[in-house]
Amino acid sequence: MRRLTANSDTFETQFTRIVNDRRESDADVASDVRGIIAQVRQKGDDALIDFSMRYDKHALTADVSSWRIGRDQCKIAYDMLMPDVREALDMAAQRIRTYHEGQLPQDRDYRDETNVRLGARWNAVEAAGLYVPGGRAAYPSSLLMNAIPAKVAGVDRLVVTTPTPHGQMNDLVLAAAHVCGVDEMWRIGGAQAIAALAYGTRRIQPVDVITGPGNAWVAEAKRQLYGVVGIDMVAGPSEILVIADEKNDPDWIAADLLSQSEHDPSSQSILITDDANYAAAVEDAVDVLLAQLSTKMVARESWENNGVVIVVEDLMAEAPALADRLAAEHVLLAIDEPEAMFAKIRHAGSVFLGRHTPEAIGDYVAGPNHVLPTGRRARFSSGLSVLDFMKRTSFISLDEKALGEIGPAAVALAEIEGLPAHARSVKVRL
Amino acid sequence: MRRLTANSDTFETQFTRIVNDRRESDADVASDVRGIIAQVRQKGDDALIDFSMRYDKHALTADVSSWRIGRDQCKIAYDMLMPDVREALDMAAQRIRTYHEGQLPQDRDYRDETNVRLGARWNAVEAAGLYVPGGRAAYPSSLLMNAIPAKVAGVDRLVVTTPTPHGQMNDLVLAAAHVCGVDEMWRIGGAQAIAALAYGTRRIQPVDVITGPGNAWVAEAKRQLYGVVGIDMVAGPSEILVIADEKNDPDWIAADLLSQSEHDPSSQSILITDDANYAAAVEDAVDVLLAQLSTKMVARESWENNGVVIVVEDLMAEAPALADRLAAEHVLLAIDEPEAMFAKIRHAGSVFLGRHTPEAIGDYVAGPNHVLPTGRRARFSSGLSVLDFMKRTSFISLDEKALGEIGPAAVALAEIEGLPAHARSVKVRL
Repeated sequence: MRRLTANSDTFETQFTRIVNDRRESDADVASDVRGIIAQVRQKGDDALIDFSMRYDKHALTADVSSWRIGRDQCKIAYDMLMPDVREALDMAAQRIRTYHEGQLPQDRDYRDETNVRLGARWNAVEAAGLYVPGGRAAYPSSLLMNAIPAKVAGVDRLVVTTPTPHGQMNDLVLAAAHVCGVDEMWRIGGAQAIAALAYGTRRIQPVDVITGPGNAWVAEAKRQLYGVVGIDMVAGPSEILVIADEKNDPDWIAADLLSQSEHDPSSQSILITDDANYAAAVEDAVDVLLAQLSTKMVARESWENNGVVIVVEDLMAEAPALADRLAAEHVLLAIDEPEAMFAKIRHAGSVFLGRHTPEAIGDYVAGPNHVLPTGRRARFSSGLSVLDFMKRTSFISLDEKALGEIGPAAVALAEIEGLPAHARSVKVRL
Repeated sequence: MRRLTANSDTFETQFTRIVNDRRESDADVASDVRGIIAQVRQKGDDALIDFSMRYDKHALTADVSSWRIGRDQCKIAYDMLMPDVREALDMAAQRIRTYHEGQLPQDRDYRDETNVRLGARWNAVEAAGLYVPGGRAAYPSSLLMNAIPAKVAGVDRLVVTTPTPHGQMNDLVLAAAHVCGVDEMWRIGGAQAIAALAYGTRRIQPVDVITGPGNAWVAEAKRQLYGVVGIDMVAGPSEILVIADEKNDPDWIAADLLSQSEHDPSSQSILITDDANYAAAVEDAVDVLLAQLSTKMVARESWENNGVVIVVEDLMAEAPALADRLAAEHVLLAIDEPEAMFAKIRHAGSVFLGRHTPEAIGDYVAGPNHVLPTGRRARFSSGLSVLDFMKRTSFISLDEKALGEIGPAAVALAEIEGLPAHARSVKVRL
């Protein structure tokens, strides 16, 4: 954990280093992934059989249940949930659905003053594929956050693919798939799953958009197949920036910081406060809480390597500019006037306003998406939304008179650009 | 040019081949581009000096005018335009601006029934970089279509970079830059320009989003730097699908087909009609027009290699499904009831309704963007818009009571996901 003081001589150098630190694995898996994709394109299902045995120790056989998880199995997993978990999952799904329904875009269709009819129509993509990791990172909440926007967008066919190492399925993921109405669920993981979704195989029909988190191989496969299909933003390690004054209980803020640290050793938690004593109290609270967490191994490594505590003189005057430079995935404003500070922040994935809005509430049940831009990408990208599963077709309609009004300008421009057929296609109609 | 008849036995095979034909260069420039990017990151402006001399025969010297084109130069280029061209450029800019202003998204801010405050705020990115190719493909209309959405979005700093081979500038591009209010204009091209925009050098501040067309090196550099910056969709060769009945003058339709063919030898023009005699008449008109065009070399190569004429029995019944499989960049509906057919088409970049709406009108002056998804990417992506230069920050605000209502569900989900600090950050506040 690093302690920085904003008015020290070395602050700018230290802070710039934190801003530029990518914390992302440099593992060069590009050529491995190219090979896997080529195999899947060439050999289809046979390549999936080979890779699933090699990487997941899972045998894809003549028995269809080794390939697919049925909707009935998902229903059973849902029915067997503890009641409080089932209710929580239902509440989360309902709230996420309602929030995302508000994202549905409006079509446009109007005539302008020259009687040119213009507009745009939105349509959902036909099929979306969601990757769900196996093992530690197999979160049912993540399936909800990817699947529900796709369903709200109106996708016809929602396909999940997930590895089942040694044949083992994750009942929570199955239950979440039931809640979301997933149409197909395949027991395939890794870059081979992404390649199968992008190009299709004999068994698996291709999809148009692929989203969802995954390891370095999955992320690289999505990157390589970007353009063959649409993908969501490449995600890096997650991060939280907590801006807190001394009026917060240090235990609350310690829990907020560690809720990010416990995700992954490369996660980052940053506190900005205006009181050095308060900063020390939070650090102590972090140490106490760390000792109690079942996730202490991961959380400690993250906090020790990537944690940052910054003491400024004036939160309202200094913190927003620092927040914009960090462009963090999550920004928690635990201060008296969170609204006034939010008005000064331009770059953030999601903002949590006030002392009673812990970031974890947004991970599960608030409604907005928890798939958010990481690694300073909030400077130019947004959280996952229904728009990631839709596309817009613009349209134009002219009658003879309207073409007479704006056509000559098109002819003039086509001619200076040296495109005579363009010019002619307008001129013959004038 | 291939002729297909929808009711023939071989149609499905032939049509599927056309759908799957990518027409994209397989030139493997990935490792060249990786090298160029690494050099620019490492050596900054010195690398730009080397590459500009090597690839563009342009010397970047101590004289700043060898690096940058001043706004005064752009103004002069604009003032020296022929009056009809200047008026056409102004009209185009005005119409494009008006259309894109209608794309500005609405912020959201509301309280739901549990008194949870939810919403999302849109902000422009701080800086956008536009690549403008040199040589044949240096189109002022393309600069308008990229720069105006960025300006409408509210980007603070709009940077153009363009090669000036042998020091030669393109006055039309300069004039268009003036019309759009471009803030900086750099005389740098190729993958090195994209790397400089993404990472910055001593002279050039980095940007957040890079758009604009380019050759294989530029496209590959954008792909490799996706994630460091935002980029627009990777573009392939352009295409038009014309759906026309026999009531159209064959000359009109021939001009529409060739207006796409003249762009590039890899462009594709497809006609679907319901009358074999009419198809033959259009083919004849294409041959006549081809002989007259100054772009005949390119247009003929494109038409001969990639042109397709499909005869179906019933346009309204058969054409929409074929159009959706092609998911073409441009779709022209030169029929009596274009509206009824448009209602049946789901995948298209832009649709041109009716006999008096040639595609070229959309290239220049109609208003919607002419940067559109190619190579079947209209299945999952949209034309360029103001949204490409903006990003959304979601926000959440709870008071104690609201947290009491939805907090326990978050705790239940955090606990089953094995994330105790998440659970604790909510529990301590309950």
